[in-house]
Amino acid sequence: MSSTFISHAADHPAPTAFPWIADGLALGGDYSPEQWPDEVWAEDVALMREAGVNSVNLGVFSWGLLEVANGEFDWGWLDRAMDLLHGAGIGVNLATPTAAPPMWLLQAHPEIATVDADGRRTGPGGRLSWSPSSATFRRYALRMVRALAERYAEHPALRMWHVSNEVGNENGWTYDDETVAAWRVWLEEHYGDVAALNAAWGSAFWGHHYTAFSQVGGPRHSRTSHNPGMLLDFERFTSQALLGHVIAEREVLREVTPNVPITTNFMVQHSPGVDDYRHWTGEVDLVANDHYTMGPDPRRASELIFSAARTRGLAEGRPWLLIEHSTGAVNWQGVNRAKGPGELRLDSLSHVAGGADGTLFFQWRASTAGAEQFHSAIVPHAGADSTIFRDVTALGADLRSLAPIRGSRVEAAQVALVFDHESSAAWRSGPKPTTLFRDIDLPVRLVEALSERGVAVDVVPAQADLRGYRAVLVPTVYLAQDGLAESLRTAAEAGASVLVSYLSGIVDPSNRVIPGGYPGAFRELLGVRVDEFFPLFEHERVRLDDGAEADLWTERVALDGAEARIRLDSGDLAGTPALTRHAVGAGAAWYLATRPERAGLERILDELLAEAGVAPVAPADRGLVLARRRHEGSASYLFAVNRTEQPLGLQASGTDLLTGENVDGRVEVPARGIRVIQESAR
Amino acid sequence: MSSTFISHAADHPAPTAFPWIADGLALGGDYSPEQWPDEVWAEDVALMREAGVNSVNLGVFSWGLLEVANGEFDWGWLDRAMDLLHGAGIGVNLATPTAAPPMWLLQAHPEIATVDADGRRTGPGGRLSWSPSSATFRRYALRMVRALAERYAEHPALRMWHVSNEVGNENGWTYDDETVAAWRVWLEEHYGDVAALNAAWGSAFWGHHYTAFSQVGGPRHSRTSHNPGMLLDFERFTSQALLGHVIAEREVLREVTPNVPITTNFMVQHSPGVDDYRHWTGEVDLVANDHYTMGPDPRRASELIFSAARTRGLAEGRPWLLIEHSTGAVNWQGVNRAKGPGELRLDSLSHVAGGADGTLFFQWRASTAGAEQFHSAIVPHAGADSTIFRDVTALGADLRSLAPIRGSRVEAAQVALVFDHESSAAWRSGPKPTTLFRDIDLPVRLVEALSERGVAVDVVPAQADLRGYRAVLVPTVYLAQDGLAESLRTAAEAGASVLVSYLSGIVDPSNRVIPGGYPGAFRELLGVRVDEFFPLFEHERVRLDDGAEADLWTERVALDGAEARIRLDSGDLAGTPALTRHAVGAGAAWYLATRPERAGLERILDELLAEAGVAPVAPADRGLVLARRRHEGSASYLFAVNRTEQPLGLQASGTDLLTGENVDGRVEVPARGIRVIQESAR
Amino acid sequence: MSSTFISHAADHPAPTAFPWIADGLALGGDYSPEQWPDEVWAEDVALMREAGVNSVNLGVFSWGLLEVANGEFDWGWLDRAMDLLHGAGIGVNLATPTAAPPMWLLQAHPEIATVDADGRRTGPGGRLSWSPSSATFRRYALRMVRALAERYAEHPALRMWHVSNEVGNENGWTYDDETVAAWRVWLEEHYGDVAALNAAWGSAFWGHHYTAFSQVGGPRHSRTSHNPGMLLDFERFTSQALLGHVIAEREVLREVTPNVPITTNFMVQHSPGVDDYRHWTGEVDLVANDHYTMGPDPRRASELIFSAARTRGLAEGRPWLLIEHSTGAVNWQGVNRAKGPGELRLDSLSHVAGGADGTLFFQWRASTAGAEQFHSAIVPHAGADSTIFRDVTALGADLRSLAPIRGSRVEAAQVALVFDHESSAAWRSGPKPTTLFRDIDLPVRLVEALSERGVAVDVVPAQADLRGYRAVLVPTVYLAQDGLAESLRTAAEAGASVLVSYLSGIVDPSNRVIPGGYPGAFRELLGVRVDEFFPLFEHERVRLDDGAEADLWTERVALDGAEARIRLDSGDLAGTPALTRHAVGAGAAWYLATRPERAGLERILDELLAEAGVAPVAPADRGLVLARRRHEGSASYLFAVNRTEQPLGLQASGTDLLTGENVDGRVEVPARGIRVIQESAR
Repeated sequence: MSSTFISHAADHPAPTAFPWIADGLALGGDYSPEQWPDEVWAEDVALMREAGVNSVNLGVFSWGLLEVANGEFDWGWLDRAMDLLHGAGIGVNLATPTAAPPMWLLQAHPEIATVDADGRRTGPGGRLSWSPSSATFRRYALRMVRALAERYAEHPALRMWHVSNEVGNENGWTYDDETVAAWRVWLEEHYGDVAALNAAWGSAFWGHHYTAFSQVGGPRHSRTSHNPGMLLDFERFTSQALLGHVIAEREVLREVTPNVPITTNFMVQHSPGVDDYRHWTGEVDLVANDHYTMGPDPRRASELIFSAARTRGLAEGRPWLLIEHSTGAVNWQGVNRAKGPGELRLDSLSHVAGGADGTLFFQWRASTAGAEQFHSAIVPHAGADSTIFRDVTALGADLRSLAPIRGSRVEAAQVALVFDHESSAAWRSGPKPTTLFRDIDLPVRLVEALSERGVAVDVVPAQADLRGYRAVLVPTVYLAQDGLAESLRTAAEAGASVLVSYLSGIVDPSNRVIPGGYPGAFRELLGVRVDEFFPLFEHERVRLDDGAEADLWTERVALDGAEARIRLDSGDLAGTPALTRHAVGAGAAWYLATRPERAGLERILDELLAEAGVAPVAPADRGLVLARRRHEGSASYLFAVNRTEQPLGLQASGTDLLTGENVDGRVEVPARGIRVIQESAR
Repeated sequence: MSSTFISHAADHPAPTAFPWIADGLALGGDYSPEQWPDEVWAEDVALMREAGVNSVNLGVFSWGLLEVANGEFDWGWLDRAMDLLHGAGIGVNLATPTAAPPMWLLQAHPEIATVDADGRRTGPGGRLSWSPSSATFRRYALRMVRALAERYAEHPALRMWHVSNEVGNENGWTYDDETVAAWRVWLEEHYGDVAALNAAWGSAFWGHHYTAFSQVGGPRHSRTSHNPGMLLDFERFTSQALLGHVIAEREVLREVTPNVPITTNFMVQHSPGVDDYRHWTGEVDLVANDHYTMGPDPRRASELIFSAARTRGLAEGRPWLLIEHSTGAVNWQGVNRAKGPGELRLDSLSHVAGGADGTLFFQWRASTAGAEQFHSAIVPHAGADSTIFRDVTALGADLRSLAPIRGSRVEAAQVALVFDHESSAAWRSGPKPTTLFRDIDLPVRLVEALSERGVAVDVVPAQADLRGYRAVLVPTVYLAQDGLAESLRTAAEAGASVLVSYLSGIVDPSNRVIPGGYPGAFRELLGVRVDEFFPLFEHERVRLDDGAEADLWTERVALDGAEARIRLDSGDLAGTPALTRHAVGAGAAWYLATRPERAGLERILDELLAEAGVAPVAPADRGLVLARRRHEGSASYLFAVNRTEQPLGLQASGTDLLTGENVDGRVEVPARGIRVIQESAR
Repeated sequence: MSSTFISHAADHPAPTAFPWIADGLALGGDYSPEQWPDEVWAEDVALMREAGVNSVNLGVFSWGLLEVANGEFDWGWLDRAMDLLHGAGIGVNLATPTAAPPMWLLQAHPEIATVDADGRRTGPGGRLSWSPSSATFRRYALRMVRALAERYAEHPALRMWHVSNEVGNENGWTYDDETVAAWRVWLEEHYGDVAALNAAWGSAFWGHHYTAFSQVGGPRHSRTSHNPGMLLDFERFTSQALLGHVIAEREVLREVTPNVPITTNFMVQHSPGVDDYRHWTGEVDLVANDHYTMGPDPRRASELIFSAARTRGLAEGRPWLLIEHSTGAVNWQGVNRAKGPGELRLDSLSHVAGGADGTLFFQWRASTAGAEQFHSAIVPHAGADSTIFRDVTALGADLRSLAPIRGSRVEAAQVALVFDHESSAAWRSGPKPTTLFRDIDLPVRLVEALSERGVAVDVVPAQADLRGYRAVLVPTVYLAQDGLAESLRTAAEAGASVLVSYLSGIVDPSNRVIPGGYPGAFRELLGVRVDEFFPLFEHERVRLDDGAEADLWTERVALDGAEARIRLDSGDLAGTPALTRHAVGAGAAWYLATRPERAGLERILDELLAEAGVAPVAPADRGLVLARRRHEGSASYLFAVNRTEQPLGLQASGTDLLTGENVDGRVEVPARGIRVIQESAR
């Protein structure tokens, strides 16, 4: 989509040969020497070498210390830091420091700040307080970026540019006047004329008929919901406005340093965040992701696998960088739980199993002051004499052992799981049948069940080519992107087993319900027709006739070509199909109309996988999570992650890269342990 | 009360002979053809005829599509819709479209919008975003109303004017400057001089002494509570400001079409909403009510009976119109539950049993776009091939069978239940002894227990004449309107059993506590005196000496003429009376000082009903809900509603209008079924 | 700390001989005759005499009734009230009425109002709506104070000035422009130059580097947390700004009436409120405290003991005045529970046991109108014929019997418990490892366990001299004030048993984490080193190897000189020390790294008390709460409070002042009863 304020990089060819940022797999983290006196710097570098750190993110949030007054730069400390790191052989991902504007700039231009839907302007302090549509902010930010790029263009420590930081996090949505003006321009470019907008939004509802783009307000405070189509478009606009800022910085960097690769840190897991990364990945040289586990989530290990797979899907299968995760507790959850024994290692290497070529941490050294003073780090408050530092040092050794893996790709899975950011955005845009739904809930449950079985899964966008997958899962993909129904049909006809769940295919890309019976987009494919939703109350359960229980959702399914496999066995809809199967070409299209508890979901999945002929990555005990990475036409590496408290076994043959041990036949993976086996030819 | 900004219709005599809006009982709903292309209109009318629809609300929210620019009208689509409906024999309740102003008006005059107590002005989008005290809004709205009235004054489809929509819903309270100015005028008219205001509010408290009306602010954001008397007056002012707008529209309509009846849709159930409908009913020609059941409420069927009875009470016993309810789920609850099997029919006919002469639905056809895209309709997203459409069609047949009932009145009950809007408003005005109290809680529990016994109940305002009732229930009537105590005494002296509950008669009409011992207003009548409240914590329970448990509330009751019937048997107040009886003339005044659980409350009610000689509407099995409608000195109709899963029986003689069956003696009502028996002379 | 806007009273010597406000112990409350007609006044005074009231707070909130227009005073009613009270022999604590400005002033100067962090200015109505940094408010307030002081300087009823009311309650924090300006001045005075501020706050974090004090904003709305050091300083500034107002009023009062003592009512219990009373006590002649129990708190009796001990600690052991508590329910809790049988008496006399020389109530007579119409009083709505009035009258008799106690001091305890306001303020300043922590939770649990054992405890600030205590408890003293670690070491070396808990000594006075291993400040003293926190989720529990369970908090403790006494026995940290002991000189330093449930905590305490040789106040049954007051070198008074439902016994010899009974040997204290024994020489 063309846009006047998102200038694309057509004139600047992307660097073709990506020079990897580290020697082997990357280990390191965000480094903030500006917070510490010089004597600590020396210790830092010594400890980095001890731990095996080879890559740091430098300069994030340092604007106020670099441009100490309007146009007045102080490079001294950063010069020294760059030199010091280079001297130690540590590569630098140098951040443009634009995430937090300097205090003098906020004082001079308070109007650059975000404004929330209630009209509250963000005060000074904090971070990411700027509106991406502020022309003034853009001007100052790009001047800073240019100065930084020019200063360090030739510095030998520089490996990659790290554009700003978590763009879209705290400044995810803003309703300031410049934003509203930009939004109107975006709408005009998108729709051309206001009649098209009225049609797309169905603005005849409540008489919200527009006769000029200038009548469209931002979705600011209202006592009722705004139009769902408008809300979804505002999400799209906002993601692009944020991306526009990233691209604007990138343009400056590419102009000054055409051969230095560029990234920015995604927050893929932050679902539903505002950034629709599907449109972002093409604009960076390396896909980099931040990932933080949620302490109280019993499925957090599966959520990690899911997030890693999503990131890999965004990267179209290429290796990516875990640019932030944590060694222990964060400071922004209700109860900030530490990681359990072995969890730091298992989390890190699970990302590698999912395609990451490095695991960086936020952060190198724990701050004693500032808003994140209780965020964990490689060097905690206790210093290097600490479990965490020892764990990271051991991880460094592991990563060195795994160096051969660098550059390999995760082997394509037999199972695809469709996940669509705009579905999440559409769901939160306007009132819905239930407030209990969470977009990643069913996807993570499915990933968990697959992982338990050693089955690999690719998480792919709705636009992906699904041919070649034996099974395709479409869990609560609420919005039907153009072409998805056809793509699923093609897969099924070619022999795949397609499983679509409740709350899929309900709305079109304009967030309008597809009429004629749910799920409108997939009704024909599935051979079912639903005329009414029956969402369940919190803690309410229904029985299924296979003995399982289900919750959250039911609906009145009528068969229209499909056969019923499981029916509801209690409640107002007793007797109604809950799981159906529709033969389609050489394959089948299954429909799951409720949310079974774990065992019930697993039985369904077992049946589907058997029908589809899906095999685990390797023969293994139930509970062992498996993945395989492979160099193009060359060596393969089998990852086996055991999060349980008991040893689990698998069949493998080759060399364990972590222990050097040669294995052949049944291999045991210790409790809370991992094996990475460079496989003998198979 | 006279007011400069509420102009009454003294010069325009109300239409005397009300021409009913439909042939027989009304069936239909809100119809929004403007949301659909023309081809759908033809299907709509065909389906309406199939379903038996004979009445629609048209034009609600259509301002933006009628007045497409300032003073520029586009009548085409509405002309065609009116003609089409007329051609199909369907009557139109034509709405003034003022509930949602056009976008061009909001753009030109953002100052017409409501402002909340925190100072947030409602942005464009949404509905009912206007302040009733905005002179600018009033001017534009009345111009629109006049243009509409003049356009369709003579149209043969026009049956009734539907003034705006749910006035007071989203614009229930506003604190904008014009409102504050109007509020000061209202106070000056009400109190005459500021000393009277100081006295009424007790403004010596915290030294809030006023020396001029101009010092009174709206009750905007404060870090403490505002004065309870001020808050209650602001409620009264607000209801009247909203009613003032309705009257202003009505005046225009009456001027142009003096013979067309006028209504506006009440939200009686919306308790405590702002509108005090006791002052509204005299201003409309037909009382019309919106009603939506709350999915998770286990007493929702009884709440429906209570709401219908309240509406009937407001209509002073005359038939009224259920102008909105739902065929299934709404979209504004946490979990929007569909209706269970038979529930649509039972809900609709229960309203008829309660005095409704028609049941219209919001809405005819489910929107695919807009904020209410998941609100149910007669024609759901799935189309006419759907359970809901079939259920409505069956309901249409039922209503045609029930046509003889049209115009009959619900037979006066032997039991009256006093419900007072200002009590609810007074309760929420200022800090109270407990936050766990809900105004309709005890009334609905009592209605439920009465209904279980086949006993009818009239819900009447505090100003009602109570003579003639055998039992009078006064559940948590917190504010004692002038005359209520005397009215209760008169009823008791004449032989009635009066039951007053805790939290009744505590404050006077200025929201000041009546001193001397609670319940101040009814202390002498009841022969008790309470010197201290002991509200219970959530989930806390006490035992009564009749074996029941109670919760929510206890208090220290001393007998002062009454005798104790039940005493507390646990807790700090063990031994204190919980239920007392005071012989008064030929009757008695009972006092209930706690909230017993269901069985306990039922035992008390059984005793009271026995003493009072209250009989069920007909001899019947426990659980069958009964009602009787009767034409003046003519035929009577016995309704028997069975919401249980078992058949229940009653004694009746006559013809079942729904089945045509003649019955005499024990008649069985099927599970989830209903009978309406035109009775043989009794 | 010197400050331009906090003018100290250097030129006005404090009154040296404090003339006590009443004859004997004080009984009375807030008296608001302005709310009542004259006929009630006569009844009031008669009832006061009946109840034994000898002291009232008069004029609180009466500004609007005294200065009825700008500069125009109406003294008539107050003259009459003062005369009336004097005639009845009742002393008056005359309040400056500045807590609630008059309506005419709020109308003329809306800018004096507080503004919250979201930018909402407090509207008129309410109380304490003024910003302490408003120069305009200050000017009007001081004019009012001077006029009042001059009017009543010589009035014989005047016993004490009561400066304003609960300063810092509703106006605890404000972010208006004058406040922000004052805050910058405060920072400049405090830090001298901005580099010192940057260092203290660690403002390099997120690049929040300041180059001028004018860049510092108030911590207004931000989408992220503000800097913890900044937040803590803003707390300090705010407390001093509020104190500055108190001092400014005092200066006027001292100038006009140099010999009249001055107080203001503290809200010690309001933790964490904004007022840091440690800096306030030196500015008043008498420490006076408000105390309200929280209905649903099962530890409310222990919280009362703790609050009384804190107040006594602030008063450095001198008698203090309970200037407000309640006879029954308040009106600001969720469920406002009445007091149970005997609770009014036990609460009142427990304060006396804790050092209070009087117990005044808010309020004399319950208002019928106004925001506090449901707040209890000595004369409730029911009037004098009420349990409460009878209970207060009986209390009056008790207090007359206890008159000999007046002026005695509570005997120094053997156990000190350190409580530090700035620790509470620091904890809430910025994100923390858990949101489940409450600052007074562990202190109250410890006080409860000590009280159960008849052991007395002094609650002392972190700056206190701890020598002489046999045991010192340091429960969750998060911020380490300068000198505290040394003071604890000194105590331990001298033989004391010091018990430090989790979350103690974590940050320095700038709210920066002390690095090197937790608890940084006390690590060496305790001989332990913690490298990571493991906070527990809500409802999560761990087992200890002594059989107890614990919750809320765990951490990885390594021994560094200490020995483990109890270890965790479940969870990720099983085997880790949970309770350690480090021999230090003649004493020991214990560390408690988790929160054991009641029995577990009691076992630990029993062991510690035994080691330390701590004895109960007297030999007594478990559960009897004991305290002793003593006149300097003279009579001693033993208080024994029994809150249980069974009689409990103690060993004592002397005369029960309440009954006149002579006792010797085992004395029984009835259920819900109290004895105060003037002891024979021991």
